[in-house]
Amino acid sequence: MTNSLLIKAQNARKASRELVKFTSAAKNMALKYIAEELDCKRDLIKEKNKTDIKNAVEKGMSKALIDRLELNDSRIDGMIKVLNDVVTLKDPVGEIIGMDTQPNGLKIGQMRMPLGVVAIIFESRPNVCIEVAALTIKSSNGAILKGGSDAIHSNICITGLIQNGLEKAGLPRNAVGIIESTDRESVKELLKLKEYIDVVIPRGGLNLIRFVEENSVIPVIRHDQGICHTYIDEFANTEMAIKVAYNAKVQRPGVCNAMETLLVHEKIAKEVLPLLKAEYDKVKLELRGCDKTCSLLPGIKKATEEDWATEYLDLVLSVKIVGSVDEAIEHINTYGSHHSDAIISDNYNRGMQFINEVDSAACYINASTRFTDGNEFGLGAEMGISNQKLHVRGPMGLRELTSAKYIIFGNGQVRQ
Amino acid sequence: MTNSLLIKAQNARKASRELVKFTSAAKNMALKYIAEELDCKRDLIKEKNKTDIKNAVEKGMSKALIDRLELNDSRIDGMIKVLNDVVTLKDPVGEIIGMDTQPNGLKIGQMRMPLGVVAIIFESRPNVCIEVAALTIKSSNGAILKGGSDAIHSNICITGLIQNGLEKAGLPRNAVGIIESTDRESVKELLKLKEYIDVVIPRGGLNLIRFVEENSVIPVIRHDQGICHTYIDEFANTEMAIKVAYNAKVQRPGVCNAMETLLVHEKIAKEVLPLLKAEYDKVKLELRGCDKTCSLLPGIKKATEEDWATEYLDLVLSVKIVGSVDEAIEHINTYGSHHSDAIISDNYNRGMQFINEVDSAACYINASTRFTDGNEFGLGAEMGISNQKLHVRGPMGLRELTSAKYIIFGNGQVRQ
Repeated sequence: MTNSLLIKAQNARKASRELVKFTSAAKNMALKYIAEELDCKRDLIKEKNKTDIKNAVEKGMSKALIDRLELNDSRIDGMIKVLNDVVTLKDPVGEIIGMDTQPNGLKIGQMRMPLGVVAIIFESRPNVCIEVAALTIKSSNGAILKGGSDAIHSNICITGLIQNGLEKAGLPRNAVGIIESTDRESVKELLKLKEYIDVVIPRGGLNLIRFVEENSVIPVIRHDQGICHTYIDEFANTEMAIKVAYNAKVQRPGVCNAMETLLVHEKIAKEVLPLLKAEYDKVKLELRGCDKTCSLLPGIKKATEEDWATEYLDLVLSVKIVGSVDEAIEHINTYGSHHSDAIISDNYNRGMQFINEVDSAACYINASTRFTDGNEFGLGAEMGISNQKLHVRGPMGLRELTSAKYIIFGNGQVRQ
Repeated sequence: MTNSLLIKAQNARKASRELVKFTSAAKNMALKYIAEELDCKRDLIKEKNKTDIKNAVEKGMSKALIDRLELNDSRIDGMIKVLNDVVTLKDPVGEIIGMDTQPNGLKIGQMRMPLGVVAIIFESRPNVCIEVAALTIKSSNGAILKGGSDAIHSNICITGLIQNGLEKAGLPRNAVGIIESTDRESVKELLKLKEYIDVVIPRGGLNLIRFVEENSVIPVIRHDQGICHTYIDEFANTEMAIKVAYNAKVQRPGVCNAMETLLVHEKIAKEVLPLLKAEYDKVKLELRGCDKTCSLLPGIKKATEEDWATEYLDLVLSVKIVGSVDEAIEHINTYGSHHSDAIISDNYNRGMQFINEVDSAACYINASTRFTDGNEFGLGAEMGISNQKLHVRGPMGLRELTSAKYIIFGNGQVRQ
């Protein structure tokens, strides 16, 4: 065990116990001081970031990845905005969720409390440091950041500024810590420290998520891939179906809530698919169809079994013609990733069946899956989008960084 | 991978998707049919149970453990009562927890849905099969039971009766399955089947829990030991303090919500400790004290560092005199198991500080920790008592066998 790792985890635990004692006003003050630090130290941030960029260029990293790394003034403004936005959000800590009086006179209720210490293991984007810190500080959680080697200079610099802001507001510096070593071994060690860390959140590619799941003895919140579906029912409004299916795929194809597979009822396929293809053709989208789709839209590629379980994150779409809403639901529950799925239908029963039986974090009737997002759902900023079922499904915001403990007010009750 | 294990997990997944479609009335009918099966097949149950008892005797198992194994008429009545009790509980599935309309007209809400497939790995008591089946069926979850070798004949018999009851009510038999092999290797294999199992709940000793935590890639709900505290504040009502501290320890010392360490403010120790000792002496309770306690109560054993972190589950109690409520809270958060802890005080601020800062699933003012229990908290039957912070803290009842997915009603909204 790296000694510094253990000490950082212990410090985070200690700081998290302190954080519970601060009011929302004090925590907001810390967020404002951090925003101020970012604003005043722009040059320092950009200088440290340049070292990361230089290393990335030397390593021959792709342009897209280098772009994700870069911290320019507009990105720094973005981080400041995140902090200010979180200031305006309601603090979930201490919220009492109902309280009943039992027959013996005990008043028993539940109160939201922070999870404790949250470790976030992430790749690339250094702005994640600020997104995480804003949410964990506001919800009185300690945080341990473990970023990738690509952004290490930027991450360390930003975390230092976060700690300065905390200190200025009188909060413990160690409420946000960073692991400076960047190898997988230190992640492995971190994942054993269950006495000091309550939850681990991996944010990154599938490899990282699998690695964390397999090595953690600490509970993990999985923010996995999004294999999202839109099902166009036979009772769909054709115009709406085309508009929504186009938006779900094309508006931003590289994100987890974008559609990857289109399912179409056989009774409406002939009408809707050629029209949709004409729209998709305009953006040079590649279609991969089932046999029936291929015979309806000659010239398109045939989908393989693998396609149904692939998150393209690109202008590629698999299309399947189904005989019933049951077949559509079965397909989604089998091949999907329990993220976001939509039905387009004007039939009440079909819509309700879809909502009840699709086993996904977000089930839509007549809207684009692209809305699955903390801001769009009215939660504000988010830690990510969970597609596991324990604790949180969908966007993980401030409230989901807490859980409820029981509080019991008695006047001397004893058990008989 | 044992083929039968994989098939059982797949069957449970398939059955769980079916279960979502049944009404509460249908699920209640299944519970009643299961109760009927138990009642009619008493002789069969007792016969199978005798084989387990015989093997246990031959293996030289302790009397206490053999007692836990035994299924007599009164225990069978108890299982029938559990089923009937769960019939009366409110079905949490489908509950809609608020729904707001967003500025773009989308109606976004959250709806409780089953976790999916729950695997329960347990030791000894065969009645666990019924407790688990009643709760998982009622909450539309599939269940996979994996009991210990000691009760295997009883467990298989009871699970068969459960499946008969399910079938009679028209529900899928495979909604409750049992793993017949009893070795740890098959547990290890089970813990990898994350495609088919959503949550693992170990119920048993620390060894079992550690084994599951270390080998599972599936989320685990930990029902760990209870190192519970009572803190007698300087502003405590002495009579109440003695009554509650006696009850918390003595009423049933072998359970997880019984007190293991007593903390006493130094300003009240001289008054309260000798009186309490006199009570404890009547039941031959062994006290182990800190230095100050030992000089106040001559003749008692000295507590070691290990004592503060020990769950005795017996008539043994460690006692520490503290200088402040802060010291008491620090001790509880350091040595406790985040289960149930109580303050006895008539001072408002002390009580509120304790409630806010003690990091436990159940925080009490002026009551015995022995109340931490699904029935006492008004939840009805429980799967166990969680002392992790993710998803559920404290008793895990029907509601905690669900989580909330987002449901979104639109009329053609697309993301800009």
